[in-house]
Amino acid sequence: MSTLYKTASVASRALKSAGASASASRHLARATPVVSSKKLARRHASTIPPRSDRFARLTQTHVETLRSFLSSPSSLLSTLDGSATVDELASFNSDWLNKYHGKSQVVVKPRSTDEVSKVMKYCYENNIAIVPQGGNTGLVGGSNPVHDELIISLANLNSIRSFDPVSGILVSDAGVVLESADHYLADQGFIFPLDLGAKGSCHVGGVVATNAGGLRLLRYGSLHGSVLGLEVVLPDGTVWNGLSKLRKDNTGFDLKQLFIGSEGTIGIITAISILCPRRSQSTNVAVFSLPSYEAVLKVFGETKKHLGEILSAFEFFDKASYELVKHHQREHGVEVKKVFDNEGDFYVLVETSGSNSDHDEEKLSGLIEHLMEEELVMDGVLAQDATQTASLWALREGITEACSKTGVAYKYDLSTAPSVMYQLVEEMRDRLANEGLLKDDMSGEVKTVVGFGHMGDGNLHLNIVGKEYNEKVKQVIEPFVYEIVAARGGSISAEHGLGVMKAPYVSYSQSQTSIDMMRRIKQMFDPKGLLNPYKYILTPETHAKDGQ
Amino acid sequence: MSTLYKTASVASRALKSAGASASASRHLARATPVVSSKKLARRHASTIPPRSDRFARLTQTHVETLRSFLSSPSSLLSTLDGSATVDELASFNSDWLNKYHGKSQVVVKPRSTDEVSKVMKYCYENNIAIVPQGGNTGLVGGSNPVHDELIISLANLNSIRSFDPVSGILVSDAGVVLESADHYLADQGFIFPLDLGAKGSCHVGGVVATNAGGLRLLRYGSLHGSVLGLEVVLPDGTVWNGLSKLRKDNTGFDLKQLFIGSEGTIGIITAISILCPRRSQSTNVAVFSLPSYEAVLKVFGETKKHLGEILSAFEFFDKASYELVKHHQREHGVEVKKVFDNEGDFYVLVETSGSNSDHDEEKLSGLIEHLMEEELVMDGVLAQDATQTASLWALREGITEACSKTGVAYKYDLSTAPSVMYQLVEEMRDRLANEGLLKDDMSGEVKTVVGFGHMGDGNLHLNIVGKEYNEKVKQVIEPFVYEIVAARGGSISAEHGLGVMKAPYVSYSQSQTSIDMMRRIKQMFDPKGLLNPYKYILTPETHAKDGQ
Repeated sequence: MSTLYKTASVASRALKSAGASASASRHLARATPVVSSKKLARRHASTIPPRSDRFARLTQTHVETLRSFLSSPSSLLSTLDGSATVDELASFNSDWLNKYHGKSQVVVKPRSTDEVSKVMKYCYENNIAIVPQGGNTGLVGGSNPVHDELIISLANLNSIRSFDPVSGILVSDAGVVLESADHYLADQGFIFPLDLGAKGSCHVGGVVATNAGGLRLLRYGSLHGSVLGLEVVLPDGTVWNGLSKLRKDNTGFDLKQLFIGSEGTIGIITAISILCPRRSQSTNVAVFSLPSYEAVLKVFGETKKHLGEILSAFEFFDKASYELVKHHQREHGVEVKKVFDNEGDFYVLVETSGSNSDHDEEKLSGLIEHLMEEELVMDGVLAQDATQTASLWALREGITEACSKTGVAYKYDLSTAPSVMYQLVEEMRDRLANEGLLKDDMSGEVKTVVGFGHMGDGNLHLNIVGKEYNEKVKQVIEPFVYEIVAARGGSISAEHGLGVMKAPYVSYSQSQTSIDMMRRIKQMFDPKGLLNPYKYILTPETHAKDGQ
Repeated sequence: MSTLYKTASVASRALKSAGASASASRHLARATPVVSSKKLARRHASTIPPRSDRFARLTQTHVETLRSFLSSPSSLLSTLDGSATVDELASFNSDWLNKYHGKSQVVVKPRSTDEVSKVMKYCYENNIAIVPQGGNTGLVGGSNPVHDELIISLANLNSIRSFDPVSGILVSDAGVVLESADHYLADQGFIFPLDLGAKGSCHVGGVVATNAGGLRLLRYGSLHGSVLGLEVVLPDGTVWNGLSKLRKDNTGFDLKQLFIGSEGTIGIITAISILCPRRSQSTNVAVFSLPSYEAVLKVFGETKKHLGEILSAFEFFDKASYELVKHHQREHGVEVKKVFDNEGDFYVLVETSGSNSDHDEEKLSGLIEHLMEEELVMDGVLAQDATQTASLWALREGITEACSKTGVAYKYDLSTAPSVMYQLVEEMRDRLANEGLLKDDMSGEVKTVVGFGHMGDGNLHLNIVGKEYNEKVKQVIEPFVYEIVAARGGSISAEHGLGVMKAPYVSYSQSQTSIDMMRRIKQMFDPKGLLNPYKYILTPETHAKDGQ
């Protein structure tokens, strides 16, 4: 590829512009599953808790009554009264990875908070278990029924309620798609303080309910800081209007915080109030190759020092991740473009977002010159325009697709202190190699182990790519992966949440004192255990599994 | 004063450097009370709830046992065993405004979390009520006993536990003074993400327990976003180690959030883990005079647009505030220096903090030129050095002292949407004038009504300065002030908290559904109601007053 220099001062030595190299889109597509759903269902069967007899089995009479609460006939889909087929309910019953499968016979899609309230009150009185569902883009089985729970979809609660351009406060129904909310804000010069791959499908209520992290956390902080208020329907149908539009309010316990990340277990979020920053005028992206993880840590420190308040992303990926992306391109007949003259063992992507492009470029140039003079990086590429920006981001964001298309990906979303984060990848590789499962030439039962993620947040995505699902491989990985995280005081779920997948493993990241408090909170809000059962913090009412 | 221009481009027309004008220090001094404590005690007597018989009365036997848990004899002060006099306990029994007065006979100052735990376990088993106390700088009577509660002071838990310069995460004992923590961080190029006037006395644990706001919230967000973990001793003495050092951890309810702003009612914070940003290399401060509140709102929008990520404070004060500061200077024989050629009805203080002083000055110059060209401001002053920066800040921060030294200040800490915030001041003035209490020449029973605060956070400090304490004046103000806040969906306590002062008025800002949930949380954590009784969210166990 041609070597284009952005400015003389910026591009000393090897710094080049980015070609339109990597192929993957930044947004998640609903990928064709590489393993049949039957096989996946079987592999997870062993961990599925049995249905609790405490919950009612839905009947046609229930469906008739529920329908009477809804203003539109299309707001209820059920196989019980013939208003839907099993196939029509399939997308509600399964997650987007096609890994978790429920057998719900009823989906309710209320058009107002009042309708949500009436449905929930009825469910409460009749012991009907419920799973709330947003965009259904989660990765831990949190938004699908485990058995026959009634599904309440928030998709029809999809209006922006208000926006105040003086304060930057957006009030929105829970079912507004994240990308729609962000487009609405962009028109007014503002930005939603959270971004993630699934933004074209996920709901703003869902990201709050799961405390999603994503790509803007380094800059704009967590939702615990930016969400100002919530409207929540409690398990018994009571509507809690906590939809504050105040940046400061010290009048009692900050109740909304409990619902942020509660994964639909103590109430259903029907609207959010969130503080949105002004949209940056200028964005720059650069990618560097580095010789070692130690260099990654040093570059992270230098980057924060040089870029200060304009740093908006610091992502990293390892050589195995980059090789896998190239392998995936080759396999699919996509031309593999050369990005770096000097490839390294590690790569980092740095993004700036600021209010003055000249200033931002000068800061970034200063950083690049420093990194090259100090020989902290081996090579670097700076995007010249939006297309190149997208193609550099695709190097990082294409890893997920490359993993799932190359085989079966055992995905772990972990966090530790940045300094010890990469040890998790190395220890996992050693263990798999010692067990004879991982070989250098991708010929092993495990093809590759890749590490990438949000360095700025201490968040590692560890993906172990197997030829096909193998129970032995899984047993070599788990609970070992959780043990090595726990040994470093880390989290077994940095941003994906617990859902049904990680519920049995909470004790690797939470003390018994924490779990006891959480159970009491769950019981206080949802004494009948009707909301999203069999998941999250397991209580004796549904069942308490090992480790809790 | 001489007119010094910073740069030609910056200082078009009337922009001048700041002289060392205002007198007040940025830090709160422990002011000599203007009203005798006896008089103040009397005026608050009517709202003090009676002592609950549910709590044990401390005896010498209790004191002996408590002393046995402590490694040092100086860690317990009591009039019961003669280890302290009533006078020696006075500063623990009273708040710094000398407004609230308890009669505790025992102060425990543990030197470790384990000692806190043993003391609390004993208190739990013996029904001994407790008030936790940090730096005792609160304004709502939250950190003093109401009657004879045992005081647990965190002052001896005063070590920095760890700091990681890669992640910026500080772990500190609760009793470390805020300013000490900030100095420690400054040495390493970092900053505590919160600043307030009382920083020389308040504790980091106290600011978290009260969810303090202060001067950096606009830039660094609320503590709900920056606090990563807490160590808390629960009412029964159990130590909850929730001292996470992770930016992301989605493994269950975010329990720490409940303790942030809980004002010591459900546990005692013994250590905090907090994410600290890099310290800015460059700071600039400018003050403007403006013709109207409408102009303040416009300038706020323009400032956010021009300064973007480097804006670190946007404070406002009204003409009455500025006049009061000058009046206070005259009264005390301080030379009143002329700051503005054109004085206005409103003033704003803008602060920038960034990583590159050239860039920051250019952005600020651009803003100033724009504001002057558009005639949005009448005059402006830009600080040239640290002394001038301090003197400009003193214009804003001297208001509190001017209020309390000019008479008796009825202080209200309110928040609403910025657009309607100043209506609260205007309505209050109208009401007091209509009642014949407020006159134009400061000759009324109420001398002046001033409005100032953190515009960027929608946080108004409304101070009504009376000649002396007057029950009629108070009845004209309250509950009227809470009613006009509630009518605008605002908060009756933006940052000061509830304590004993605002506990009876929670229902002006919180719905019955909220209050019910809060009571259940209180009861869940503290079933005996031992922690900080008679305050915050009142429960039937202590007493439920009107409005709740």
